[in-house]
Amino acid sequence: MTLSPLPPGSTIGIVGAGQLGRMLGVAAARLGFRTVTFGPEVSPPAAQIASEHISASYDDEDALRAFANQVDVATYEFENIPVKTVSFLRSIGTPVRPDERVLAVCQDRLEEKRYFAEAGVPTASYWAIDDVSALASAMDDVPGSAILKTRRFGYDGKGQVRLKSGDDPRAAFTACGNVPCVLEGFVDFDYEVSLIAVRSVSGEIGFFDISRNTHRDGILYQSHFPSGLPAEAVRDAQKIARAILEDLSYVGVLTIEFFWSQSGCLVANEMAPRVHNSGHWTVEACDTDQFEQHIRAVVGWPLGGVRRHSDGVMTNLIGYEANEWKELAGTSGLALTLYGKSDARAGRKMGHTVLLTMP
Amino acid sequence: MTLSPLPPGSTIGIVGAGQLGRMLGVAAARLGFRTVTFGPEVSPPAAQIASEHISASYDDEDALRAFANQVDVATYEFENIPVKTVSFLRSIGTPVRPDERVLAVCQDRLEEKRYFAEAGVPTASYWAIDDVSALASAMDDVPGSAILKTRRFGYDGKGQVRLKSGDDPRAAFTACGNVPCVLEGFVDFDYEVSLIAVRSVSGEIGFFDISRNTHRDGILYQSHFPSGLPAEAVRDAQKIARAILEDLSYVGVLTIEFFWSQSGCLVANEMAPRVHNSGHWTVEACDTDQFEQHIRAVVGWPLGGVRRHSDGVMTNLIGYEANEWKELAGTSGLALTLYGKSDARAGRKMGHTVLLTMP
Repeated sequence: MTLSPLPPGSTIGIVGAGQLGRMLGVAAARLGFRTVTFGPEVSPPAAQIASEHISASYDDEDALRAFANQVDVATYEFENIPVKTVSFLRSIGTPVRPDERVLAVCQDRLEEKRYFAEAGVPTASYWAIDDVSALASAMDDVPGSAILKTRRFGYDGKGQVRLKSGDDPRAAFTACGNVPCVLEGFVDFDYEVSLIAVRSVSGEIGFFDISRNTHRDGILYQSHFPSGLPAEAVRDAQKIARAILEDLSYVGVLTIEFFWSQSGCLVANEMAPRVHNSGHWTVEACDTDQFEQHIRAVVGWPLGGVRRHSDGVMTNLIGYEANEWKELAGTSGLALTLYGKSDARAGRKMGHTVLLTMP
Repeated sequence: MTLSPLPPGSTIGIVGAGQLGRMLGVAAARLGFRTVTFGPEVSPPAAQIASEHISASYDDEDALRAFANQVDVATYEFENIPVKTVSFLRSIGTPVRPDERVLAVCQDRLEEKRYFAEAGVPTASYWAIDDVSALASAMDDVPGSAILKTRRFGYDGKGQVRLKSGDDPRAAFTACGNVPCVLEGFVDFDYEVSLIAVRSVSGEIGFFDISRNTHRDGILYQSHFPSGLPAEAVRDAQKIARAILEDLSYVGVLTIEFFWSQSGCLVANEMAPRVHNSGHWTVEACDTDQFEQHIRAVVGWPLGGVRRHSDGVMTNLIGYEANEWKELAGTSGLALTLYGKSDARAGRKMGHTVLLTMP
């Protein structure tokens, strides 16, 4: 993997082509780079602004070779692409940033919990659940309520069941699809926050200001900035992020979600090896946004400034909420971003708004 | 021409595909629109992020029909496309915003001067020059120095010759190509400013803060914001812009350059029916930038907010200056935009930087 920065005009491959890939593509274009997207969909959001889209499954080695031939470096926009896709690209000489080490951690909630634990980062209590009897036994240990989550492929509240003592373990395990799970003790938290961090090829690290998140139906609803998190907790979160970034020799944007517990503790919830929905406000409120920071890291450039010039709130537009575009477009001071998705299904992220207020 | 706003997912055609079209395309993508670009080049800057690029000459009616079939509305990124291209598109049912009336004015420096004069807007004194004898005669009337400019196809200082009394009119007229010209009296100005205005389909008008421009070798070098122009002059400039926008039933962004004379007068220099180099800083410093404002107007949406949250300066990267991308990328707080041009010819606009300072 080369250390020298890629010149403008180089081509960045993006594996996955949803709205995060689209916004990464916009940031890449701003810096003079071309993008080629790769993913199974025929006309996904990111493909609309890419120089080319290769529509193929993640295990199609011929298509991956064609993709590799066109790009100078590759990255990915979500954590559920196969580790093998990334290792194959690297095996044929394409640098992929970040590399696959972080995928192995982030694709499995149990591995992620273990990784946090080994790094000395507080998490909710947790139990590996491979079958109903393990669940029944673990439920005896849980003081109050708990959440059963599939180990793999969960996002936006999918693959999760809330449990309280006395509930039927068989029904819960079946509801999660009879697959390996992790049972998490309930964290009595005040609020959830996100720390979006970025590390460059040369090891430079930047932290955006932390935002405070609220959810609806398990999906991120709003991110408020600033978060109101005490300064000491911010320093703790940054210390944790720095340790993880350095441990993984990570290159790119990494997002860590924390709970701020009612007892005043920072508890790691999960991390994502990518730009994050809770950081979309950095486009409107910061000198350099999360998408450009990721692109700068991926092409081996120095990071941009993370200074935040405004306070405000980001609000997701889920499903049919995006049909209100006329009213939203006419709302004074509201920045509107739409993802180019034609089909407004319930629960689907269609766009977001950012309302800035002065500090 | 319909008055109802186009929904996200609609396609915007952009005639001309340089860096302005590229930045318009980015703004369109942000709002969920697709773009198709049209122009003679094979792989121009805007084509890299468009859904499709049609490479054809501006008078190729078959290609224009194919373009029209794909787009819901069209706009253009520069003023030197043939009036006939726009009127042809409109004749086959494609709304074009702004329409061709403004092109007829902006493509001819003499028409533009006459248009300003009829609107009661002060300009430099001027003389229509169709041949050497007209130039010789006009030079007798000019008190000090003057500038001979071709009536058509001049930009970035091209097609201009400075003259002082005693100079050879034949040599000057030849230097301008022996084509119809206009001779302009020299304006003893303190500085040049740009007003970037926008008008929506419904007649709503917005004005960005005025910026102050400096030039090198006839090409814009820097735009400073705020401009320092007295408030009364700002109001005068806005009054002039409003009158022109309404007179032309203009839809989209219109840029007017003014001189602020040493005697404290606002003198109109020229106008451009498009987003403008001197407004690139609106991306970093305003709630809604000039590109999104133009797209909002073109698709019949309400305008966004023009509030400027920061002071600063935009600096163009001309020719080989863009080769300094490594140093620029590493300069703290500097926002860098590159246009995806591979060939850094002398005098070619390759990108720009914006440095924000707090108000």
